[in-house]
Amino acid sequence: MKSVTKVTVLGPTGRLGRAICAAVLDAPDMELVGAIVRSQSAFLDEDVGEMLDRDTVGCRTTVPFEDALELSDIVIDASMPAMTISVAERMAVQARKCGLVTGVTGFTTEQSERLATAAQRVPLLAAGNFSLGIAVIEALVEQAAILPAKDWDIEISETHHRLKADAPSGTALLLGHAAARGRGINHEAMAVWAREGVTGPRRPGTIGYAVSRGGGIIGEHEVRLLSDMEEISISHRTHDRRVFARGAITATRWMCDGGKGREPGLYSMQDVVKA
Amino acid sequence: MKSVTKVTVLGPTGRLGRAICAAVLDAPDMELVGAIVRSQSAFLDEDVGEMLDRDTVGCRTTVPFEDALELSDIVIDASMPAMTISVAERMAVQARKCGLVTGVTGFTTEQSERLATAAQRVPLLAAGNFSLGIAVIEALVEQAAILPAKDWDIEISETHHRLKADAPSGTALLLGHAAARGRGINHEAMAVWAREGVTGPRRPGTIGYAVSRGGGIIGEHEVRLLSDMEEISISHRTHDRRVFARGAITATRWMCDGGKGREPGLYSMQDVVKA
Amino acid sequence: MKSVTKVTVLGPTGRLGRAICAAVLDAPDMELVGAIVRSQSAFLDEDVGEMLDRDTVGCRTTVPFEDALELSDIVIDASMPAMTISVAERMAVQARKCGLVTGVTGFTTEQSERLATAAQRVPLLAAGNFSLGIAVIEALVEQAAILPAKDWDIEISETHHRLKADAPSGTALLLGHAAARGRGINHEAMAVWAREGVTGPRRPGTIGYAVSRGGGIIGEHEVRLLSDMEEISISHRTHDRRVFARGAITATRWMCDGGKGREPGLYSMQDVVKA
Amino acid sequence: MKSVTKVTVLGPTGRLGRAICAAVLDAPDMELVGAIVRSQSAFLDEDVGEMLDRDTVGCRTTVPFEDALELSDIVIDASMPAMTISVAERMAVQARKCGLVTGVTGFTTEQSERLATAAQRVPLLAAGNFSLGIAVIEALVEQAAILPAKDWDIEISETHHRLKADAPSGTALLLGHAAARGRGINHEAMAVWAREGVTGPRRPGTIGYAVSRGGGIIGEHEVRLLSDMEEISISHRTHDRRVFARGAITATRWMCDGGKGREPGLYSMQDVVKA
Repeated sequence: MKSVTKVTVLGPTGRLGRAICAAVLDAPDMELVGAIVRSQSAFLDEDVGEMLDRDTVGCRTTVPFEDALELSDIVIDASMPAMTISVAERMAVQARKCGLVTGVTGFTTEQSERLATAAQRVPLLAAGNFSLGIAVIEALVEQAAILPAKDWDIEISETHHRLKADAPSGTALLLGHAAARGRGINHEAMAVWAREGVTGPRRPGTIGYAVSRGGGIIGEHEVRLLSDMEEISISHRTHDRRVFARGAITATRWMCDGGKGREPGLYSMQDVVKA
Repeated sequence: MKSVTKVTVLGPTGRLGRAICAAVLDAPDMELVGAIVRSQSAFLDEDVGEMLDRDTVGCRTTVPFEDALELSDIVIDASMPAMTISVAERMAVQARKCGLVTGVTGFTTEQSERLATAAQRVPLLAAGNFSLGIAVIEALVEQAAILPAKDWDIEISETHHRLKADAPSGTALLLGHAAARGRGINHEAMAVWAREGVTGPRRPGTIGYAVSRGGGIIGEHEVRLLSDMEEISISHRTHDRRVFARGAITATRWMCDGGKGREPGLYSMQDVVKA
Repeated sequence: MKSVTKVTVLGPTGRLGRAICAAVLDAPDMELVGAIVRSQSAFLDEDVGEMLDRDTVGCRTTVPFEDALELSDIVIDASMPAMTISVAERMAVQARKCGLVTGVTGFTTEQSERLATAAQRVPLLAAGNFSLGIAVIEALVEQAAILPAKDWDIEISETHHRLKADAPSGTALLLGHAAARGRGINHEAMAVWAREGVTGPRRPGTIGYAVSRGGGIIGEHEVRLLSDMEEISISHRTHDRRVFARGAITATRWMCDGGKGREPGLYSMQDVVKA
Repeated sequence: MKSVTKVTVLGPTGRLGRAICAAVLDAPDMELVGAIVRSQSAFLDEDVGEMLDRDTVGCRTTVPFEDALELSDIVIDASMPAMTISVAERMAVQARKCGLVTGVTGFTTEQSERLATAAQRVPLLAAGNFSLGIAVIEALVEQAAILPAKDWDIEISETHHRLKADAPSGTALLLGHAAARGRGINHEAMAVWAREGVTGPRRPGTIGYAVSRGGGIIGEHEVRLLSDMEEISISHRTHDRRVFARGAITATRWMCDGGKGREPGLYSMQDVVKA
């Protein structure tokens, strides 16, 4: 492998995908060699530079990913679950060296299992959120959640901009799952999604969510552990949306490991943070 | 009127009522002369001091309030809407000097109108929350809410202890109504009580609520105004539950006004704060 | 006056000045007719568009402001105190219609008096901070500070990015002065700038400052009022630096008042917010 | 060892010592058998119950600790460094079973070394703060501080009541040392104690402190990690002062380990949390 990593981006036309393409183009140690869109995409066969309102870069969006895979050292994925699975399984057959870095979420249980199977033959890094800060607090939340559930109530709150159309955020769920892991409980069974009207007293051991929406907030998340006499809070704020693309680049470099590549396996941003 | 204000407490057996009784007993310028309970109360004909695990004070809980009203300069009310209305209307007939200070909430529209009618003949102070701090931020929220609704989204969040059985808190609603007044909108039409699942983008002009429950939190309230580039937050925390009884005492002294008493009318904690 | 306001910018080459120039160029109801720099400026006689890495706009930076004043309806000022005074006094002589909008701070007492004198003949708007949100909380802080000093301690904290080289921020001081006005005290006599080592108990009535520096924080300010049992917090966060230029444009439109212009006088962002 | 742990308290007359005595008296599995004061103490030879405004308990404050040590299973220490050292060294000679739990801080380097030497023969638990929550966030801060110092600035802020006479708090320092350990730097060399006036840009790698004082705040601590695009915050609030005595009781039970006692060694609240 050369000193420059050849990158293909899946899903280059969404907000995250565009930011990743821009970050790859700006990275001195990376070269954008492929940009894969769906066959129905309005952006098919467009120069990626022009799509980003930048100078032409000579890499055009295409549909069939076999050629792009052939040319690239690593794939960064901002597409949708079906495409992620399809590419991961193709890479498992070809046993690509540096593998796949995906920021896609919302896999079904069956898709998650197929991803895990593919990871036996190709290195896969699956990130619920590419921010390094979120990866760090995910670990902190899991650790803090060892405090006994009978004394410490866990509450998660998040705020996002006025356009966000679902609640709670995927990142809030990621943190809730970390808390549930730390506590050794089933997340779905213990989640309280919202509170309104006559709720009765708090059910012990639950994990509560509270959601706010407004303005241009890129993303705020807070996990509180509340006891009768004291309280712990672990929180994160994103000040600049470019942090996600930057995290994807950091994860990509970690996966390449100076050109050697990682062993096959399913990695997470936790591995990147610990490096 | 003497230098010592004679006080009757309505509803002396609940958490707030007990705290008010204790505060009256501890106030050098006040004397507890009556403590009115419902006829079915388990605490009927008990010495108030003993009820509070203190020394006997010689004032016993009674049902008929006519005698107590006759003896007292002012009434502090921590009972329930029906008793509040009943006493207020009786006081309006008797034209009592210092009037009634009530912390009761949850009046129906019809009860509110009867209260306003009574206030034409007797000074009434109706407080949604006896904390001076809440009264101050209520005014701040109303003032901040003049910022244009098309640019600034209003979100209210609150946290209370794990035993609180309804959501959002009455104080959160009090703040939401202040925001609606400041903005000149109908609160009920614009309130979004909770967010879960596919919510779609935020509807412009709404007031959102988010509720957390846990630990021993006495009461935290925050009102945020969120625009695309900046944000304002106005918040309040209660650190000690005794603040409510103290606020009731402060309100009572304001109503007595050095023994002169106020003109008939419907007052609020805003008037106390401005004094 | 035409439907398009002709604007001259003083100090167009600093960070705020550049943002204001860009905002004027982007405003459909404004035209940039002048950009005044110091005679030693490295940017002298440069096209403002090119200075901003945009297309040429035909307005070049110049030194003598008499011509620019002649051509413009209003002046927006992001320069330094000496130039502000010089231009304000010149405008007072010429009795310009729409006047001067200045975001300059750090005037000496003597300069402030000269500014006030000039304002008798020309409308001047002096903003310590062009953010509308800061203007709003400045008013809230002044109002909240009526709470009695013997019970409520005032503490101001602020956080800015790692490059900020002075402490506390000018905006923190603006809020401290608002608190002092509300309380009727002398700010300088009561300010506690930092705490370290053996400080002794808090001196009653003081206003404390606490400063943090780090990361890319554009600006966070919080004013707390702390009593023994409860606490109020009023805070502001800037999420996007462009908010300052946008506030300058809003202030400029308010000063022009649809072409009529304001009466001579010294205005502030408070007037803009109330409009 | 019996089912009831016999406890001696060192320094029973201060605020923490009194709370610990009360907690021991209220614990069904503990018996207060000794209360050691200095020979000059105004409280010498007083019944501990009476000192606490409770019923007589039959345990009187005494000076010589040999007898008390002889009678007790474990010692809880809220005294001063000199007495702590003296007792620890005596216990090392006697090889007491359950050892010493100390909340004393402010040891000199020489005293710390003597404490460590004693811990080779007797189990010692040294807590900078008896709150379990603080122990948890201490570990979280150390872990988060592995984020690279060139990208992430660490800032610590704390607020305490108006009577606190030193700054920053011992607990803030405890958290700063945890951050320094996580980062592998020397705390004293990198601490910035306060910021005022012309500070210049933030020196990379430093740990900044910011202190607020006011009202009745029992203790708030926040550690922030600030990068250019995102931020992490880890914070703790104490809502009830009794949390410290409760933590001391929890630590004491952990040291007794059901009557077996721990091996000699120097323990911390971290060990208690992990249990």
